[in-house]
Amino acid sequence: MKVSVVKNILAANDRIAQENRAIFDEKNLLVFNLMSSPGAGKTSLLEKTIVALKDHLNMGVIEGDIQSSQDAERIAETGAPAVQINTGGACHLDGNMIRDTFHEFDFDALDLLVVENVGNLVCPAEFKVGEDFKVMILSVTEGEDKPAKYPLMFHESKVLLVNKIDLLPYVDCSVERIREESLKVNPDLTIFEISCKTGEGLDAWCDWLKGEIKAKA
Amino acid sequence: MKVSVVKNILAANDRIAQENRAIFDEKNLLVFNLMSSPGAGKTSLLEKTIVALKDHLNMGVIEGDIQSSQDAERIAETGAPAVQINTGGACHLDGNMIRDTFHEFDFDALDLLVVENVGNLVCPAEFKVGEDFKVMILSVTEGEDKPAKYPLMFHESKVLLVNKIDLLPYVDCSVERIREESLKVNPDLTIFEISCKTGEGLDAWCDWLKGEIKAKA
Repeated sequence: MKVSVVKNILAANDRIAQENRAIFDEKNLLVFNLMSSPGAGKTSLLEKTIVALKDHLNMGVIEGDIQSSQDAERIAETGAPAVQINTGGACHLDGNMIRDTFHEFDFDALDLLVVENVGNLVCPAEFKVGEDFKVMILSVTEGEDKPAKYPLMFHESKVLLVNKIDLLPYVDCSVERIREESLKVNPDLTIFEISCKTGEGLDAWCDWLKGEIKAKA
Repeated sequence: MKVSVVKNILAANDRIAQENRAIFDEKNLLVFNLMSSPGAGKTSLLEKTIVALKDHLNMGVIEGDIQSSQDAERIAETGAPAVQINTGGACHLDGNMIRDTFHEFDFDALDLLVVENVGNLVCPAEFKVGEDFKVMILSVTEGEDKPAKYPLMFHESKVLLVNKIDLLPYVDCSVERIREESLKVNPDLTIFEISCKTGEGLDAWCDWLKGEIKAKA
């Protein structure tokens, strides 16, 4: 009973996500779904990415949080259009919540739309929102054992950003081990090592992203 | 429909959690439910706590992870009895999963049982497992905005352990702000600042815990 209800919820969500995706595709709008544990650096990554790419493209952001609008305010300060969703307790975003924001955007004026999910390394990976692909962040402070312990998110993501590499001298963590363990779960994962604090590695990520946007435009 | 199903699941879980609690109470066994984001230091805290208290009391651990048995192996190396639960995808532990481990323990030989939940700052806070109280860890690398963004976990916890204070010189985070924001959500929260790496602050936590165990024995 419980299982079939969960299956029905997931199937209904997949249908709505497909409808969202059709709308994005019609507008040639690239959309990615950004996921991580709380505090791994999702909003910081978006702030840096918006600033780095602002002469090349227009980016919009949907911010998902259980409560508060701090993240949308941070994004709005960069000048990019940002809409905050408050899930009011729910641990992930779903297709319906994303669709409810569409009237807030002018998709014709955008090249890229990012959905920043609720900070959670588990549940968001189960729910599509209409994205082209998923991007996940893992902070080096979280440790090397995370791919083995939270495999679905690593499996579902196209890109892994290993963030906070500026802290590597102070934590017991090997980026090589993170790479190995992540590729065991998902051999197709594209991995970038970055620091949103120092800016290291962000050029490679932004160049890759520009390529993806060009391919869909 | 979806809401009523969720309510029924929570009500059924509360009933089982109460039954678990009655068994723990009969044995005068203190039980706490340990929660945090992935990689905030739950298993490291338990390793340090077991070693610090091993001459004073006997402690058992139930380890919850989606996959892998790395954490139970780490605990077993300290000599404490440890049982691994693999949720196989589920984002939290519930009362039933805990009850299924009871035959693995000799509760008469234990003074303290710790349930280490799945790394997730959202869902575990909604599900009781029969514990006397909840303890949460927040790493200083996660940032000061977490109480406002994930209020339920801060609201439901009796104790907040602010971990990784050894990293404070290298991150943009104020422990004072974490305290203020946490107490806004839950004015009754008992807060300890700790570093599982250097051992700083662990004495105060262990002394507090010994007091709680004595009060229930």
